[in-house]
Amino acid sequence: MIYADNAATTKMSRTAIDAMLPYMDEIYGNPSSLYSFGQEAKEALENARERIASVLGCEPREITFTSGGSEADNQAIFSAARLGEKKGKKHIISTAFEHHAVLHTLEKLKKQGFEITLLDVHKNGVITAEQVADAIREDTCLVTIMFANNEIGTIQPIAEIGKVCREKQVLFHTDAVQAAGHLHINVKEQNIDMLSLSAHKFHGPKGIGVLYAKRGILLENVINGGAQERGKRAGTENIPAIMGMAAALEEASANLDKNAEKLIKLRDRLIEGLDKIPYGELNGDRTNRLPSNVNFCFEGIEGESLLLLLDDKGICASSGSACTSGSLDPSHVLLAIGRPHEVAHGSLRISLGEDITEADVDYLIDAVTEVVTYLRNMSPFWRDLVNGKRQHVFAE
Amino acid sequence: MIYADNAATTKMSRTAIDAMLPYMDEIYGNPSSLYSFGQEAKEALENARERIASVLGCEPREITFTSGGSEADNQAIFSAARLGEKKGKKHIISTAFEHHAVLHTLEKLKKQGFEITLLDVHKNGVITAEQVADAIREDTCLVTIMFANNEIGTIQPIAEIGKVCREKQVLFHTDAVQAAGHLHINVKEQNIDMLSLSAHKFHGPKGIGVLYAKRGILLENVINGGAQERGKRAGTENIPAIMGMAAALEEASANLDKNAEKLIKLRDRLIEGLDKIPYGELNGDRTNRLPSNVNFCFEGIEGESLLLLLDDKGICASSGSACTSGSLDPSHVLLAIGRPHEVAHGSLRISLGEDITEADVDYLIDAVTEVVTYLRNMSPFWRDLVNGKRQHVFAE
Repeated sequence: MIYADNAATTKMSRTAIDAMLPYMDEIYGNPSSLYSFGQEAKEALENARERIASVLGCEPREITFTSGGSEADNQAIFSAARLGEKKGKKHIISTAFEHHAVLHTLEKLKKQGFEITLLDVHKNGVITAEQVADAIREDTCLVTIMFANNEIGTIQPIAEIGKVCREKQVLFHTDAVQAAGHLHINVKEQNIDMLSLSAHKFHGPKGIGVLYAKRGILLENVINGGAQERGKRAGTENIPAIMGMAAALEEASANLDKNAEKLIKLRDRLIEGLDKIPYGELNGDRTNRLPSNVNFCFEGIEGESLLLLLDDKGICASSGSACTSGSLDPSHVLLAIGRPHEVAHGSLRISLGEDITEADVDYLIDAVTEVVTYLRNMSPFWRDLVNGKRQHVFAE
Repeated sequence: MIYADNAATTKMSRTAIDAMLPYMDEIYGNPSSLYSFGQEAKEALENARERIASVLGCEPREITFTSGGSEADNQAIFSAARLGEKKGKKHIISTAFEHHAVLHTLEKLKKQGFEITLLDVHKNGVITAEQVADAIREDTCLVTIMFANNEIGTIQPIAEIGKVCREKQVLFHTDAVQAAGHLHINVKEQNIDMLSLSAHKFHGPKGIGVLYAKRGILLENVINGGAQERGKRAGTENIPAIMGMAAALEEASANLDKNAEKLIKLRDRLIEGLDKIPYGELNGDRTNRLPSNVNFCFEGIEGESLLLLLDDKGICASSGSACTSGSLDPSHVLLAIGRPHEVAHGSLRISLGEDITEADVDYLIDAVTEVVTYLRNMSPFWRDLVNGKRQHVFAE
C-alpha cells in the first residue's frame, strides 16, 4: 500500500506512541488533583506545554490544549469576535478557500450580525498582504487566513499578512493545521496573534490540538465547565495525547528541513510525471506549496472513480479534503482558484509521507496515468471533448 | 499506593488499551476517505457506535462522539436551548449541585436571556420528580439533572424525572458522567432524551465521550467545520479513543453487578469505619449512592491539609471535584445539601476502584482517623470547639 493521503491524517510515529503509553497505563492521575500522583501528571502537562511553546516560539502560558484543529479554529474566531463586538467592531476578513472549521464558524457569526469579507484567491492559490491591507476597515476585528491550504498546499505570506494586521491593530489568526510540523513556524517572527494546529497531521495522535493565543487576548470558552486550561477549556486534560503531540511536534520540527528537502524532490518528480497526462493541470503554485502536496485536475474525469481505481492499485489518495468527502459539491478551494465546475470534479490530491520512495513516486505516476486514460476511454463526456462537441478547458 | 479518586479519573483497563493500540499504530486511516484503508477505520467507528448504542439501549444514529463529558453537556444544553428559543421557550430547570460543565453553560445562556431555575437539593443529596413537575412551566424547554452526583455520589430518580418531562413534553438531559459504566442505564426505559458520558470515568481513555440525543432532536454544533458525525461535530474522528471507549464501556457493563456488589460491601465498611470519627458526618444518602462513593465532612478540618497528609500515607483522595480544585470556595455541592461553610471546607471524597480490598479499606479508615485527630490537635478552631467557645455542627 502507498499511503498518499497525509493531508487527511498521518500514521503515528513510534516516538509519539511511546510518549503516550506510560500515561495511558501507569501515570493516569488527574492533573487537577492535590496528591503527588496527580502532580506527576500535572508536571507532564506543563512540560509538554513548554516544549510545544518552544517549537512555536511563544510562552507556555500562551498555549491552550484543545481536542484538535477544528476546536482551536472555532475558539480563536469566536474569541476575536467577542472581543471585537465589545468595541463595536463586527467585520472579519478571511479567504474563500479556508477550511470549513473556519468558514462554517464565520457563517455562524454572520447570522449573529458580523460582516464577513472573503478575499478572492489568486489562481496560483495565494493571497497577498496587499489584499489584506486593502480590505481592513475601521471596524475589522479579525483577519483569519490559513498558513497552507489543505487541498492545494499553497503557502500564504503569513509574516507579511501578520505585519499588515499588526500595523492596523487587527488580530491575526492562522489555521496552521497543514503547516505545523511541516513548515517553519515562529509566531513572534511571523507576527501571528492566534494559531491552530492538530497533532494527527504530523504523526501525533488524533483528538488533540493547540490554540496559541498571544498574551493579553482573552479567550472565550467553546467548552464551558471546569477550571482546566486557566478556565478557558473545560474537561479533564488528555495527558496521553498531549504527551504524544509534544513528542511528535518536536520530532517533526527536528527533521523538518531534511524531510522537506527529500519531499520537494519527490513531489517535483511526481508533478513532472503527472504533467505529461494531456488535458490536466496542477492546482496551485508550482513551487510555493507544501513539500508533500500534489494536486491535479484532469478533464473528463470523475474524482470518485479515479480514487476507487487507484485504491484497487493499493494507492490511498483523495480528491480534496477528507472533511468534505461525501459531499457531491465540487471543492470550494478549486472553485476559489477559478477552476470551472466540470474540472473541479476531476481533482486528485496526493499528499506524500516522509517514507515515500522514488519507486513509489514512479508507481504513482504510472498508476494515475493508466487510470485516467482508462476512465476517459469510458466517458461520454470525454468523447464529446475528443469529437469537438465540447471545448477543452486545459491545453493538451 | 491506594488510588481512591476514581471519580476524578480511572486507570485504563488492559482491554481498553488493547482496543486502542491497533488504531494508534496500523489502522490509522481517516474514516472519511474513500479508499478501503479509510473504510476500515470507518467500519471500526460504526462498530463502536453500535456497541455503545447497544449498552445504552438506543439506536447507533443517536450517538455522537465528542471530546468528553464537558463537551457533551455543552452541546446537549445549547442544542435544547436553541430549539426552545425557536418556540419562544427560554426557561431551563436544573439543580444547584450539577457539575460545572452544566452550571457554567447555563450561566452563559442566562446572559443570553434564558431563565434558569436551579432546584434545591434535599439534604440527603436527592431531587424528586415532584420538584421537577412543580417547576415545569409553559415556557420550559429543558430539564437537565445529573444521574449521580460527582462529589457525594447520590443517585437521582432519573426514570421518574424523565417520565414527568415526557408527560409535559419537555426535553430531559442527564449528565451521566459518574453513572456510565457504574449504574444501569437504558435511555428508553429511563425516559432520557439526551445523555452525556465520558470514557475516562470507567477505565476508558481520556479525551473522548458520547452525547446520546434521541432521534428527532436537532443538535447544534459546539464545534463547527467538517461534516463528521452527520455534520454535528466537526473534527477528524478519534478512532483509537472511540475503540477504547467502546471496549471499556462493554467491559464495565458486563461486570457492573459483580463490581457493585463488591464495592457496596467495602463502601459500607468504609462508611462505618469513618463514622466512628467524632464530629464528622457522611454527605449524601446512606445507601442511595454510587457503590464507589464515600464523602464525609469533618469539623475543624481543612480539606487541603487532610489530602496532603493522606498523600504522605500513599492515599490518593480528594475533597471534591477535580475540576474545581485550586478554587478556595467551598464545594457548591456541599452548600447545596445545606452544609455550613465551616464544615464544607473539611470534606473528604473517597471514590473506590474495583480492585480495592478489605485491607485497603481498613488502612483507609486508620489513616483518615489518625490524620483527622492529628490535624484537630493542631487546630485553634478545634480548640475553640472543645473549649465550648464555638458550637459544634455535628453530634459526637
